[in-house]
Amino acid sequence: MMASQEKKEQKGKRRGKQSVAYECPVYINASACIAGKKEGEGPLAELFDMIGEDDLFGCNTWEEAESSLQKDAVYLAMGKAGLDSREVQYLFAGDLLGQSIATSFGIMAYEIPLFGLYGACSTCGESLSLGSMTIDGGFARNVICVTSSHFASAEKEFRNPLEYGSQRPLSATWTVTGSGAFVLGKERGEHVRGAITGITTGKIMDYGLKDSMNMGCCMAPAACNVIYQNFIDFGRQPSDYDKIITGDLGSIGQRALIDLVAEKGYDISDNHMDCGMQIYDSKTQDTHAGGSGCGCAAVTLSSYILKQIEEKKWKRVLFIPTGALLSKTSFNEGKTVPGIAHGVVIESV
Amino acid sequence: MMASQEKKEQKGKRRGKQSVAYECPVYINASACIAGKKEGEGPLAELFDMIGEDDLFGCNTWEEAESSLQKDAVYLAMGKAGLDSREVQYLFAGDLLGQSIATSFGIMAYEIPLFGLYGACSTCGESLSLGSMTIDGGFARNVICVTSSHFASAEKEFRNPLEYGSQRPLSATWTVTGSGAFVLGKERGEHVRGAITGITTGKIMDYGLKDSMNMGCCMAPAACNVIYQNFIDFGRQPSDYDKIITGDLGSIGQRALIDLVAEKGYDISDNHMDCGMQIYDSKTQDTHAGGSGCGCAAVTLSSYILKQIEEKKWKRVLFIPTGALLSKTSFNEGKTVPGIAHGVVIESV
Repeated sequence: MMASQEKKEQKGKRRGKQSVAYECPVYINASACIAGKKEGEGPLAELFDMIGEDDLFGCNTWEEAESSLQKDAVYLAMGKAGLDSREVQYLFAGDLLGQSIATSFGIMAYEIPLFGLYGACSTCGESLSLGSMTIDGGFARNVICVTSSHFASAEKEFRNPLEYGSQRPLSATWTVTGSGAFVLGKERGEHVRGAITGITTGKIMDYGLKDSMNMGCCMAPAACNVIYQNFIDFGRQPSDYDKIITGDLGSIGQRALIDLVAEKGYDISDNHMDCGMQIYDSKTQDTHAGGSGCGCAAVTLSSYILKQIEEKKWKRVLFIPTGALLSKTSFNEGKTVPGIAHGVVIESV
Repeated sequence: MMASQEKKEQKGKRRGKQSVAYECPVYINASACIAGKKEGEGPLAELFDMIGEDDLFGCNTWEEAESSLQKDAVYLAMGKAGLDSREVQYLFAGDLLGQSIATSFGIMAYEIPLFGLYGACSTCGESLSLGSMTIDGGFARNVICVTSSHFASAEKEFRNPLEYGSQRPLSATWTVTGSGAFVLGKERGEHVRGAITGITTGKIMDYGLKDSMNMGCCMAPAACNVIYQNFIDFGRQPSDYDKIITGDLGSIGQRALIDLVAEKGYDISDNHMDCGMQIYDSKTQDTHAGGSGCGCAAVTLSSYILKQIEEKKWKRVLFIPTGALLSKTSFNEGKTVPGIAHGVVIESV
């Protein structure tokens, strides 16, 4: 048994330092996303499944509102996949709030075994990585990966009370109010959107930056590491991907990333895209460097990216949600803001 | 390919609603734990690898101290396993602090690809579950699972400033200052301590309790669900386990658990043990209901439980770290305190 498993590993799964390649594609059989009012006024609005009329979504607190986003995104995604919650073996879920309370109170009612995750805004990539490994490893037939963020609960958690109306520097990003849920399956579903064929898992990278209002630059080294390592581990070039898509670097972080990757000998300036730069119209929506948050990458993946893959406009993308690892406490204690990123290779099927 | 994978799943891995049984044992090749001064005065002290002289461990803040606990536990565990960090494919890590900052700043230096987890005090079980699946699935040869908690950083995060000297009710538990790290491997190591042979993954259970000073009772329903489902999924009885070990229910939560499991038709009163009731001497150490925190289950597993398994005094245990899902914000907004638990079957080899 040991021998056959070893052989399997060498043949198929493990690739280099940080990557795994799946023997069979892990299907993204359905997805759904819900977003807030501001996102609903942005360029991707017509692709969202649901848009809130206001950002409380009928709840009493911002945190409850964020929980309801996760709940509804999971509900819609399960419906599209034609699945009952009893047919889903695991939930992989997370958010940005302390002790992940948006998740705890959001997805409780489904009674699905839960793995709670924290990777800051990279959590969407982390959930798709662990979810797809769980399917490929033969531990589950269907799993759901869900993440969320909410502008107001995040400002309360990380920065100042909204009532202060604090000014934000141009390098700052705007936390997306939204949630995206993805149903991964071993068998190809009727309305399959794409497939995960491999992952490149990130490590924490710290270049010593401390500016929490310039998270794009704090996260760029982590994204660079994942992109570079993905090229090495899979023996690929930038041109092997139709798009290389980061989560929420924003316009300032994008410049840093392209420069960092260039130092490693690769030019990604032609096919790099950042979810944070897609979800808002920065000229008219006053969002400065772009969107951010666990919801940013998740909503953009469900609405825009998977549509291009479904329609085969893009054959293969490297999707890399990026996270800035900080808390109120770490910021107040003068710590740096390290970054982490999780790469997922998504292909059309 | 699909057919052979399907066959494998039906034959071996998936068991019932919430469980997985591994085809080959996943070896716990090494472990290490570090604890604070108070824990070092308790009944398990002589089994700890390292005990701090004071709870700052030479650092400037409680959070940095907690980070150093994780760093040192991982260092010791890797050393015992004879591994270099480059031979470890993944870290599964978490703690109790907002945005998991003890982890972020603790294990960064190892440059190992990281999956950050949040399951409150159940995180040790969650990390062992995902870590062992990753090994069994053929995605890694070696992974490390590490979790921590710190009395002072937790009081600051969840309750009152220590300087207030607030009184605590008798149902309250004392957050353990400590960290435990576990090296899981596909191949049996020279100093193997035991093996993980299956897991039962918990879902969030909420009986509507709101008393964060009685977390044992908040978590008991989640522990009950995992224990009951483990019996059903594996076709086992309480007597199939030498011990059924919860993480940090404490003496009040233990009574609730034994009653809840009895309602399901099983008597675990003879072989139930709770890590929180082992780590302190409640009569002399003024810890009330017992110990708690991510570190409680991790330190007790590394020091006491694995010793019994290594020496074959216990052949098989069901280890179930338990977590209470709350934050300052959820508490202040009047939310309940739901629980979650993650069961891991550990056997002697």
